[in-house]
Amino acid sequence: MVAPASPTADRTRAQRGNAALERLGYTVELRVDPLRHHGYYAGTDPERATALVAALTDDDLDAVLCLRGGEGCMRTLLALPDRAVDRIRDARPKPLIGYSDITILHAWLQAEIGWVGFSGPMLTSFAEATPYTVEGFQRALAAPAPFTVAAPSDGPQMRTVVPGRAEGRLAGGCLSLVQALVGTPWQPDLDGALLCVEDIGEPPRRIDQMLTQLLAAGLLDRLAGVLVGELVDCNPGVRGDAYPHSLSIEQVLDELLAPLGVPVLSGLPIGHGLHLATLPMGIQAELDADAGVLRVQPAVT
Amino acid sequence: MVAPASPTADRTRAQRGNAALERLGYTVELRVDPLRHHGYYAGTDPERATALVAALTDDDLDAVLCLRGGEGCMRTLLALPDRAVDRIRDARPKPLIGYSDITILHAWLQAEIGWVGFSGPMLTSFAEATPYTVEGFQRALAAPAPFTVAAPSDGPQMRTVVPGRAEGRLAGGCLSLVQALVGTPWQPDLDGALLCVEDIGEPPRRIDQMLTQLLAAGLLDRLAGVLVGELVDCNPGVRGDAYPHSLSIEQVLDELLAPLGVPVLSGLPIGHGLHLATLPMGIQAELDADAGVLRVQPAVT
Repeated sequence: MVAPASPTADRTRAQRGNAALERLGYTVELRVDPLRHHGYYAGTDPERATALVAALTDDDLDAVLCLRGGEGCMRTLLALPDRAVDRIRDARPKPLIGYSDITILHAWLQAEIGWVGFSGPMLTSFAEATPYTVEGFQRALAAPAPFTVAAPSDGPQMRTVVPGRAEGRLAGGCLSLVQALVGTPWQPDLDGALLCVEDIGEPPRRIDQMLTQLLAAGLLDRLAGVLVGELVDCNPGVRGDAYPHSLSIEQVLDELLAPLGVPVLSGLPIGHGLHLATLPMGIQAELDADAGVLRVQPAVT
Repeated sequence: MVAPASPTADRTRAQRGNAALERLGYTVELRVDPLRHHGYYAGTDPERATALVAALTDDDLDAVLCLRGGEGCMRTLLALPDRAVDRIRDARPKPLIGYSDITILHAWLQAEIGWVGFSGPMLTSFAEATPYTVEGFQRALAAPAPFTVAAPSDGPQMRTVVPGRAEGRLAGGCLSLVQALVGTPWQPDLDGALLCVEDIGEPPRRIDQMLTQLLAAGLLDRLAGVLVGELVDCNPGVRGDAYPHSLSIEQVLDELLAPLGVPVLSGLPIGHGLHLATLPMGIQAELDADAGVLRVQPAVT
């Protein structure tokens, strides 16, 4: 377990996550104190960068799990020591697992390293992971085999924004972080991709602004399809507005994504909700917006 | 007056702004109803785009003043009718005035039209404009002559983050919108520029993330200097955080801007504060971070 972004303030939650993982049969090596902090960061930039590189180059580890998101991964990347990327490329590929701010690291793995990162639960997530989350995690991390991600029975409302089927590479993650990647060396290549977006606590006008930026930057011109995951607490009124009207999240998606003319499905449990699917980023998948499922087809390695 | 971004919910405030401008000797032509709305936008995208182009190409107008900010300018630009840019280029140059979301239009004017936009008060700002704001507005809009922007006696705390003097073009505006421009056709060219940044309601971690994106995108590599304007309600705790620690705004500026090695001054009244300086964007100026002033040198036209 490394902490490339933020620390937790709740040691008990970290301990419960650790205990849950050990009950599942994993051996967890805590590389940092989950409470260690520099402001909202889990240590200074060089400390986080050094710990991340040490974990990714340690071939005794089978996977690198992040403590939690928050913020800091881009500053971690800017602080990587000399030759870090070469040293990681020389190491045995291992899954890096996390979501939210970890979106930045998944984009970096795609752009610079070529490893598959997994959008999925983090150490603190396991403190209260549902059976859906745990089973998805174990299935995705097992030996490569096709699997299907469908919504849990008590998941968010499923909505086919634009019907159809599309194949493409899984890309994206938390929308605020996809926005933060634009213009950087780790900007995702979305040509032919299935773009996943999810977020928490961003009102419709912010979701609107972020998608509009991606449109204006031309990043959505050759998309294969869009998976809109959880948009938790993104309803109107979450942040104060100086005027009483708001588009709904559904209107924003209809106005901005429907004109793309590619399949768009909203409602799979990607992101900050109760249930959390585990997705291998960069891997080919088929979005079936009619059936409301995602079929993941990992290459046999 | 046009409304390329959001409407106001307060007709009285718009009327007071209008009356204040008329008392100053201006004749205001309201091109739209300030309360007209489509969600958080002042009309649909094509409506806002058409009204903006009509105003900028109307050579009977001496200036185009925005109603207010909010959001919508980038969607307005994406909805511009065919040949709009050519038609505006053929019209008599006139100042477009506003700040906050209008940052997008200033960047567009620089990138595509070549006119000087003014970061300054909008119609609703005049409902409660201070003498400092009004005098700065009149001085900046008068015939081109050098002028100096100094802090008002009751303005924000002035701080020399990095001492020195630097000359460059004025660029930037509201930091969230500078972020929203990254990767788009209107991304500001910051080489040799004096970057102005201000914002409202964004906690240190968001200010940090936005500046980090500009750094990672290489936009700050050849800056001349930085003017940090008002950061209103950007102190820790404005938005809920899942952990108790935060860097202060001052720490964020020190960690991210001081290493650039160019003069950085914080505290001039640019943005969402009580007082508001009017700045001709794209025009050459000298930042004197020692004396705490900005000397603007408009070219004689």
